[in-house]
Amino acid sequence: MTRLVLKFGGTSMGSPQRIAHSASIVAAEAARGNQVAVVVSAMSGETDRYLGHATSLGGGLGEIETDTVLAAGEQAAAALMALALKQLGLKARSILAWQLPIEVDGVPGSARITGIDGEVLESLLADGVIPVVAGYQGVDAQGRLVTLGRGGTDLSAAAIAAAIGAECDIYTDVDGVFTTDPRIEPAATRLARISHDEMLELAAMGAKVLQTRSVEYAKAKGVAMRVKSSFAAPGASAGTQVLSESALAERRVVSGIAYARAQARIAVPGIEDSASGPGGVFAALAGAGVHVDMIVQGRARSGGSNLEFSVEGRDLRAALQALAGHEGLSSEVGLAKVSVVGTGLRGRADVARTLYGVLEAEAIEVRMLATSEIKISALVNEDALERAVRALHAAYRLDTAVYS
Amino acid sequence: MTRLVLKFGGTSMGSPQRIAHSASIVAAEAARGNQVAVVVSAMSGETDRYLGHATSLGGGLGEIETDTVLAAGEQAAAALMALALKQLGLKARSILAWQLPIEVDGVPGSARITGIDGEVLESLLADGVIPVVAGYQGVDAQGRLVTLGRGGTDLSAAAIAAAIGAECDIYTDVDGVFTTDPRIEPAATRLARISHDEMLELAAMGAKVLQTRSVEYAKAKGVAMRVKSSFAAPGASAGTQVLSESALAERRVVSGIAYARAQARIAVPGIEDSASGPGGVFAALAGAGVHVDMIVQGRARSGGSNLEFSVEGRDLRAALQALAGHEGLSSEVGLAKVSVVGTGLRGRADVARTLYGVLEAEAIEVRMLATSEIKISALVNEDALERAVRALHAAYRLDTAVYS
Repeated sequence: MTRLVLKFGGTSMGSPQRIAHSASIVAAEAARGNQVAVVVSAMSGETDRYLGHATSLGGGLGEIETDTVLAAGEQAAAALMALALKQLGLKARSILAWQLPIEVDGVPGSARITGIDGEVLESLLADGVIPVVAGYQGVDAQGRLVTLGRGGTDLSAAAIAAAIGAECDIYTDVDGVFTTDPRIEPAATRLARISHDEMLELAAMGAKVLQTRSVEYAKAKGVAMRVKSSFAAPGASAGTQVLSESALAERRVVSGIAYARAQARIAVPGIEDSASGPGGVFAALAGAGVHVDMIVQGRARSGGSNLEFSVEGRDLRAALQALAGHEGLSSEVGLAKVSVVGTGLRGRADVARTLYGVLEAEAIEVRMLATSEIKISALVNEDALERAVRALHAAYRLDTAVYS
Repeated sequence: MTRLVLKFGGTSMGSPQRIAHSASIVAAEAARGNQVAVVVSAMSGETDRYLGHATSLGGGLGEIETDTVLAAGEQAAAALMALALKQLGLKARSILAWQLPIEVDGVPGSARITGIDGEVLESLLADGVIPVVAGYQGVDAQGRLVTLGRGGTDLSAAAIAAAIGAECDIYTDVDGVFTTDPRIEPAATRLARISHDEMLELAAMGAKVLQTRSVEYAKAKGVAMRVKSSFAAPGASAGTQVLSESALAERRVVSGIAYARAQARIAVPGIEDSASGPGGVFAALAGAGVHVDMIVQGRARSGGSNLEFSVEGRDLRAALQALAGHEGLSSEVGLAKVSVVGTGLRGRADVARTLYGVLEAEAIEVRMLATSEIKISALVNEDALERAVRALHAAYRLDTAVYS
């Protein structure tokens, strides 16, 4: 008998009909002898509708009352899923954050889970009752409802799985994680297994199948996750398994090609002349809420030292305002990032050479390059992005077979 | 300084704009130096929408999970009202049933309030914070959300007023209680003050401004209530005060004319021949869920004893089925009930005579007559109902002045 936490997001809860279909997936897992708990998001559209009401009354994200408004969506969804399960002849019960409780720190709209009391869940499971937990919410030290931020229900599911020693199946509208975005490369193949770290890098690309916070949580707590489709028939979605690196018996060098559009590049020349140096630059950007992605520091032709980095295009204006004091500041938009991801990249010297070779053969100029443990990223012209993704996908033979 | 509980129903919470307007009414009461708490219903339409979802998943009223779905509506509404009050510069905080708690017995969909812990409310009021309580819900002994049934938010408001020693203002879409339905008699006037018992009788008529359970609760606990309009400018609605009878210094004999359409009359002849007698008849009707209103037992012309009573037209079929064994059963539809209501009726012998006189002058036949402590009701042809209401309204001079 396996213990499973099944998480269903907004589109899987989009209507009473979709809830009933998701319930049939739960029923199939229970019929296979698994001990099952469920975690749900609000019905799709509810959170935006409620947020619209709250915003028009002065309550943006980060205001504690807005969290109580938003948490109502998951409350209703949990009870509706419990009804759908009962209709299939199963025993089920909705569980709200305060009924466990799920304890969180008190930052409205982006709380962290600090503890989950698994006792109620254990007792329901022992009685053959399927607990249906309202995701996305917790109770703070003052006994108030606080939400976990976008994708918080994935985090709720990972945390509940950790609390009761279960595996965690995330049901979404795609059938797992692919070697790249199938809208760009139709030959993209589904990955049968990847590591948590690979998931973190691939989650950043077009198909955001799993929120990074939930993957980080699952990695830290050693929770095995799967990404599956709730739009398939019960039991029909093979999905992608997300495992700890040590549990992956064999690995490919490269597991996928990720990308991000609408990037901007900023160059700060003469950085050694600045009073504060690079530290001052990044402090100013952090203060303006700008997330810096790739960073390159190098010798300028003029002799001095240059600092170059990339930011999301939508953050460019804030970044330039924050650095307004720097002379010779320049920036460029219309860029995109393409990344080669794989745990097999660790310690391999030839990957950068391959990447340069592939892009050179396509006459795609690399504007900036950055590497991490399991990823190499290149900043290219956005016009060339799709060609770059396809060329790299082919070069690493990602279309040949399901990674296993 | 007066303590006030202000209750806003669905239409007063119909949109963010309406919530903001209702908040301005709260602000005006606070500005007058009152210590204020608020109780709210779900935004209009929410409860029906949620109930539709629940019903399509097999969860009708009376199913515990449905209550968790429905309670989400009041949760969101309470937090939205708190936001609206904050936007006006006031300190406010949403309070959910489990945060007080409001304890109820465990009958889903029609729970009774068994206790309210006022401590949290007292502490917020002492700090100058306006508590905004989600109505319609409580927590049962198992820690689950249970709702109070239709009109439950009025009951929540009355109970919270009792718990903190406050008066209770019910804001609705009409400006108080009228001497009769203004759609039938345009000369109907607003009653400035009535007793709880009069309110109970008048609430049964067209404009159901206050749910009877809340009035009964307020009467039992000695809570003074007011019915006011949330559609008027802040402070502009005079409304109707609902007081204990002893607090009403003077009274008119008659305070209003109530009515009910779509009534049916059933006659059971030869009742003494029946094995079970009248008791058996009413037991059978109660078993079928039929509420019997007026009852007359009399000597039939044939010598035996007849039992006659009225029921809601929609209950007629169930009533006749329940009594199928009785010979000579007959029934009549197309009737209506007109009632003269007033605490001043107590012990007055002339009211029945006046009522008969007025209806006779209008050539309206009385099909059945029943009296209670503060009410005389006549069953008439539904065609004649509006004429009967107008004639009685004029006969008791209810158009002359606001009752005070």
